[in-house]
Order: sequence, then C-alpha cells, then structure tokens
Amino acid sequence: MIESVRIVGARGRVGSAVSSRLAERGVLLDPPEPDVVLLCVPDRAISEVASETAPGPWIAHVSGATPLTALDPHARRFSLHPLQSFSKALGPEQLDGVWGAVTAETSEAREVGWSLAETLGLRAFDLADDARAAYHAGAAMASNYLVTLRAAAGSLLEVAGAPPEALDPLIRGVLDTGFELTGPIARGDWATIERHLAVIRAERPELEELYLVLAEATARIAGRDPAEVPA
Amino acid sequence: MIESVRIVGARGRVGSAVSSRLAERGVLLDPPEPDVVLLCVPDRAISEVASETAPGPWIAHVSGATPLTALDPHARRFSLHPLQSFSKALGPEQLDGVWGAVTAETSEAREVGWSLAETLGLRAFDLADDARAAYHAGAAMASNYLVTLRAAAGSLLEVAGAPPEALDPLIRGVLDTGFELTGPIARGDWATIERHLAVIRAERPELEELYLVLAEATARIAGRDPAEVPA
Repeated sequence: MIESVRIVGARGRVGSAVSSRLAERGVLLDPPEPDVVLLCVPDRAISEVASETAPGPWIAHVSGATPLTALDPHARRFSLHPLQSFSKALGPEQLDGVWGAVTAETSEAREVGWSLAETLGLRAFDLADDARAAYHAGAAMASNYLVTLRAAAGSLLEVAGAPPEALDPLIRGVLDTGFELTGPIARGDWATIERHLAVIRAERPELEELYLVLAEATARIAGRDPAEVPA
Repeated sequence: MIESVRIVGARGRVGSAVSSRLAERGVLLDPPEPDVVLLCVPDRAISEVASETAPGPWIAHVSGATPLTALDPHARRFSLHPLQSFSKALGPEQLDGVWGAVTAETSEAREVGWSLAETLGLRAFDLADDARAAYHAGAAMASNYLVTLRAAAGSLLEVAGAPPEALDPLIRGVLDTGFELTGPIARGDWATIERHLAVIRAERPELEELYLVLAEATARIAGRDPAEVPA
C-alpha cells in the first residue's frame, strides 16, 4: 500500500493527471520521506534527475521507451507507463480504463508497481525491460500514426468539400465495434479502390504511397492477395 | 416532414439501425404509399432494386460510393450516407452524433434528404455527386485502414508480451484530445525510431514498409523533412 509519493514533473502532461488522481485517492503528496519518488519528466531527463535523487525510497519513471538502468544508481526501482495520450486540458479521468505497463526486476518492485497502478486506476500488466522497443513501436503506431491517418483521410474529405471532423464519430464507431474490417477491400471491390486511387493521384498525389501500402496491408488482413490491389 | 418510410434491407447493418431509429421517432414504417423508399442494400444491388421499385415516392440510397444515377429511372431521388461503422449487435444509438452526407440534384430533394437526416439524429452536410470518390476514399482510410493500423500495432504489443487491447483506450484518448501529435517523430527523436525499426525488422519484417511510409507522412505533419526518418 503506497501512502505517499513525491512527483517530479507534476505540472507536465502525465504528472498533472497522476498527481490529481493520487490526491483524489488520499495519497500524501511530496512529504519529506515519500514511499515512492515518481519521475514524470521527459525521457531524456530521467537519468539526470534519478542521479540527483537521494537514495532510500522507491524510484520509478513513467516512460514506455526508457530502460530501468536510466534510474541508476537506485536499486529499489521500477517503471509504470500509462498507455494514454495525455492532455493538460483534461484531468485524472484520463487514467480511467487505461492500461499501465509495469517493469520491475524483483517481485517486491513488481508488487509496488502494481499497487501504484491500482491506486491510479490503471489496469496493470507486466512488461519486460528488454521488450520495450516492440511495445513502444506498437504504442507509437497506434497513437501517433493515427494522427497521420486522420490527417490524410481528412484532407480527402476537404477535396470532396466535406467536413473532416465528420470522420471522428466514424473512428469512434470502429473502436466501439471492435475493429471489424468492412469496406471495399474486405469484399474485394477493386473498382472502388481504383476510383480512390484515381482521385488521390489527381488531387493529393502525396498520399498515393500511403494509401497503397495501407491497402496492401489491409488486403492481407482480409485474407486476400495484396497483389490484387490495383497499382 | 417525413411521416412514412419503406426500408428495403431493414435487416442489414445500416437498415436495422435506421429502422429502429425511425420507429423511435414515430415515423410510420412500410405503409402502402410511403413518403420515401430507402434502399439499405449492398452497393451492387442498388441499381436493380431501384429499377424494380414503382415510381411515385422519393427514393434514396445510403451508400457513400454510389452515384445517384444508380437510382434510375427515378427522378425524385437523393442519397443519405451516414458516416458510421455499423454493427448489428448495436442499436439506433449508433446514429447519435454521426454525420450524414446528403447528395441531391434539386433543392426539393436536398430538403427531403436533410429532413430525413434530422429525423435520424444525423448531422447533415451536402456532398456533390461527383465528389464521392474523394469522400469515400477518405472515409475508407479513416475506418478500414484504422483496423489495419490497430492490427499492426497490436502485433508489436504481442511481440512484447503485452495485451494488444491495451491500445484501445490509448486510441480513444487520441480522439478525445483532438488528434494532437506527440511522440518521437514530433520531437525529432530518431534514435527511438531506429530502435523501433530494429525490432520490426527482427520480429515483424512484413510491417517495415508500413511503418516507414507512416513515419515519413508523420514527419511531414510534424513540419520535419521526411528524409530525416532513418531508413
């Protein structure tokens, strides 16, 4: 049971949500001798802040990409990465229903990490320290590249004179229906794909390669030969 | 004001949601002489069903990709495409907050289309018949290709031993925060991108091209030179 936490970086994106949530849950913030020092600082600053932190309490970072060795010389350490795209405009509700990756080297550290996740309202899972690259690549694709996909799709709606924000309830619907694949590629309707490509080449040629690579990957998911996608 | 509608295809994905919503709103369904005949049938069937429908009432289809000429020989016609990924497991609430593209050739037809959209709880906008290819390409990218992106990202979480469904609240968070771009490409952290690429090449080489094309498109959005992305 974690009774007190010192947060470094409490005014940042992650730190502000985490610190409001801990306060909500009755955790004592920033006492002289905290149970846990939680580094909510940019990845590149973790190592320096850790080395300047006096040994004693548990120390943890909230980065998905950064190995535990960044917390040297501390031995009582772990990391807890909430899989969320935080905004300072929102509050601790951003943690609700979100998953948290706990990385620990000892069973005691794992227990503290899981306990902190629970206090924050996160669904904990274990992440091996050497599995971070694959984990972080997946998280970055799902979040950052979704921004790119939305921008590309939105620019095609603009070509059509339609409001790009009309896509947002659609995206939410795809989430709500469990990412079921429908549409022209699922049914092998290559004539529709050809019409898409024709207008992309005419109006947004910079999107052609992105469209084609995604079409081929989608064909694979649909159990079709990606070579069937019109080039 | 639309008082009665005959739905063809009321048991399909779109038809079942539309028909429950119309019933909720007190619209008379399937009377002998409806105000509107609404074709909720697969795209490829629209033309045949339209040609078999007796002239008289308004006739409309709910396809984003199909031109109005598919409704020949009817002249009192329009289309209304709800931008949603429908599931038969869900009800009329799937229409809430969703946008609807109205395509019409006359101001009277446009008025009927907007009125039907309003009755369904859709936010209407006008879509030109000849702008469908760009519109549908954008809608397909945002919905079908999101399924592909989630599958690719999920498979990297599997490589890491992490649960792929941990990505779903993250994706919702990206939506809730208005598609703000964060992460390694936004901050020009190419060392992290190199680590992503190394693990993708080792464990999921079939994702390398998709990752790279998306990384380059993301660099453009971030205002960076896509040539900076490590190859």
